[in-house]
Amino acid sequence: MRRWPMRRGIAACALLLAGHAAQADDLVLRDMGSFHVGGKLVEITGRPERDVTFTAGGVPAHVDPNGTYMAGQMYVQYFLPANQRSTVPLLMWHGGGLTGVTWETTPDGRMGWRDWFLRQGWPVYVSDAVERGRAGWAMYPDILPGEPVFLTTANPYERFRIGDGPGSFDQDPAKRRQLPGSQFPAEGYDNFVKQNVPRWTTTDAMTIDAYLAEVDRVCPCVLLFHSQAGQFGFKVAQARPDKVRALVALEPAGVGDPAQAAKLKGIPILVVYGDNIAKDSRWPAIRASGIGFVDLVRQAGGDVQVVDLPDRGILGNSHMMMMDRNNLQVAQVVQDWLVGKGLAK
Amino acid sequence: MRRWPMRRGIAACALLLAGHAAQADDLVLRDMGSFHVGGKLVEITGRPERDVTFTAGGVPAHVDPNGTYMAGQMYVQYFLPANQRSTVPLLMWHGGGLTGVTWETTPDGRMGWRDWFLRQGWPVYVSDAVERGRAGWAMYPDILPGEPVFLTTANPYERFRIGDGPGSFDQDPAKRRQLPGSQFPAEGYDNFVKQNVPRWTTTDAMTIDAYLAEVDRVCPCVLLFHSQAGQFGFKVAQARPDKVRALVALEPAGVGDPAQAAKLKGIPILVVYGDNIAKDSRWPAIRASGIGFVDLVRQAGGDVQVVDLPDRGILGNSHMMMMDRNNLQVAQVVQDWLVGKGLAK
Repeated sequence: MRRWPMRRGIAACALLLAGHAAQADDLVLRDMGSFHVGGKLVEITGRPERDVTFTAGGVPAHVDPNGTYMAGQMYVQYFLPANQRSTVPLLMWHGGGLTGVTWETTPDGRMGWRDWFLRQGWPVYVSDAVERGRAGWAMYPDILPGEPVFLTTANPYERFRIGDGPGSFDQDPAKRRQLPGSQFPAEGYDNFVKQNVPRWTTTDAMTIDAYLAEVDRVCPCVLLFHSQAGQFGFKVAQARPDKVRALVALEPAGVGDPAQAAKLKGIPILVVYGDNIAKDSRWPAIRASGIGFVDLVRQAGGDVQVVDLPDRGILGNSHMMMMDRNNLQVAQVVQDWLVGKGLAK
Repeated sequence: MRRWPMRRGIAACALLLAGHAAQADDLVLRDMGSFHVGGKLVEITGRPERDVTFTAGGVPAHVDPNGTYMAGQMYVQYFLPANQRSTVPLLMWHGGGLTGVTWETTPDGRMGWRDWFLRQGWPVYVSDAVERGRAGWAMYPDILPGEPVFLTTANPYERFRIGDGPGSFDQDPAKRRQLPGSQFPAEGYDNFVKQNVPRWTTTDAMTIDAYLAEVDRVCPCVLLFHSQAGQFGFKVAQARPDKVRALVALEPAGVGDPAQAAKLKGIPILVVYGDNIAKDSRWPAIRASGIGFVDLVRQAGGDVQVVDLPDRGILGNSHMMMMDRNNLQVAQVVQDWLVGKGLAK
């Protein structure tokens, strides 16, 4: 939505008189909202009917579990800045066992990437992937195959390069062994654990379908994706190369289809890795997989840049770089690259 | 946060020069963000360890399911208007099988109550209750007792006074029998179903604990609550009468502790019911339960107002009145009452 400077000025005067004028640190949105995309109906039969009292002291309701269920839908929440300075919106796709909360306020209460990019003038779309958060989930194994994985409070600490490997977590925060120089906000870890949600490892296909539905509704756009969403970002871009203006992959834990790498040759790609990868038992292989995939895109003529943050003198970043103490410094690396590609100013 | 008009003016001029000035229909926020509250650690032991490949083609991780899990936490997302016109924030608590999405954009894409009240100058806090949405959920029956209830696409249609009772739903939208004069946006029903999430009927105590944590962090405030949250709103207010300035109960499906009704005598209470209650098999009893409870508060000296919308000439409202076509007319009824209590202007 383009506006004439003169019209802005007139509107501002009217607002000034009405006492509505924005201050320099206010966030001015032309709109915000949310919607669900994707999903399909699944039929369930042969189950016994029963009465359910939904609320203590309430009136029992007869519930027939046979019928159709909506499954595979995804939740999208959007924020549109009044003063847009990008050519297209920015879609933020979270990693496994997490939700769109990843991009909001950090676990220790600082500004997250959602608001920082919004304040740079990007329309931002934050989603909760299929079966997570406000996307909802469905009965299993009937509709969602297999069963969910639940993570202990220790697991992300030791697996996301926050702590110094297996055994580094302790319930007592004072006894946790965080990686030396780690930028993860130690005091926010328990709050970060509260953001974790159960996740399936069997829902990739329906998740990709839902992301395709989001892209078909919202894009052209830039996709910014993290960890598990590595495969979603690359595969969705391979399916809709005409809809994606750039890909920003933060420590992708999965990749696209190697046989279709050439489909991404027209889309600039930035891949960002944090610190302490060599020290970890799994991350060197995960990084090698990501590098191997984007090398195929480069060989097909693609525009690929890989940034290992320590090479830029940015040290101590965990897998959750959008939450680390220097999260806005990392965001600036991404923004500078996007500006360089002509997608923002 | 009070501001001097002169400072606002100066800031507005600076913004005007920078091209940031807000237009009349822009939403100007002084901040937004999110956090989790509540939750406690639960120990799980005696489970087999296993390797999990979290992402297709990824590197397997060894997962030990024994350890501590965070459970019972709740998610809160907040939006603070630059031009606050209320004395305290407004907390919006959704009903059963739903999330905070209830208060956002309506299922057919109109403005929801979150943004409408925000635009009236209320700081708004929208939450996802324990085990729903971005609150996350925990393994069951080990941590969350019992099992979740999943609802068919037919269930809310026939139970929320959208359709004309049992048998009124059909997969084919053209064959659905909506209540005559219903204000529910028929074309949005399938999108509304996508907002539904599984829900337990056994988590009331931990949900109340989490709401108490929210109130202790955010309030004094006004609590606005719907359906299942009837018992949460009334019970939390009974536990923290000094923190709650008003209660707005939308078709409460549960109530507070009758023996402690007098604890609410200093808190103005508004109860709102929609249309077609007498035609329903369950709603006359649900309404009678709500009226019975607030009558106890009134008898103890409380300030209680019950609004049956049809008595005001507002017809056709379903249980989801915040989504109905006339949702902002209903919001205005609530706002007028709050203004009358001196809580907003």
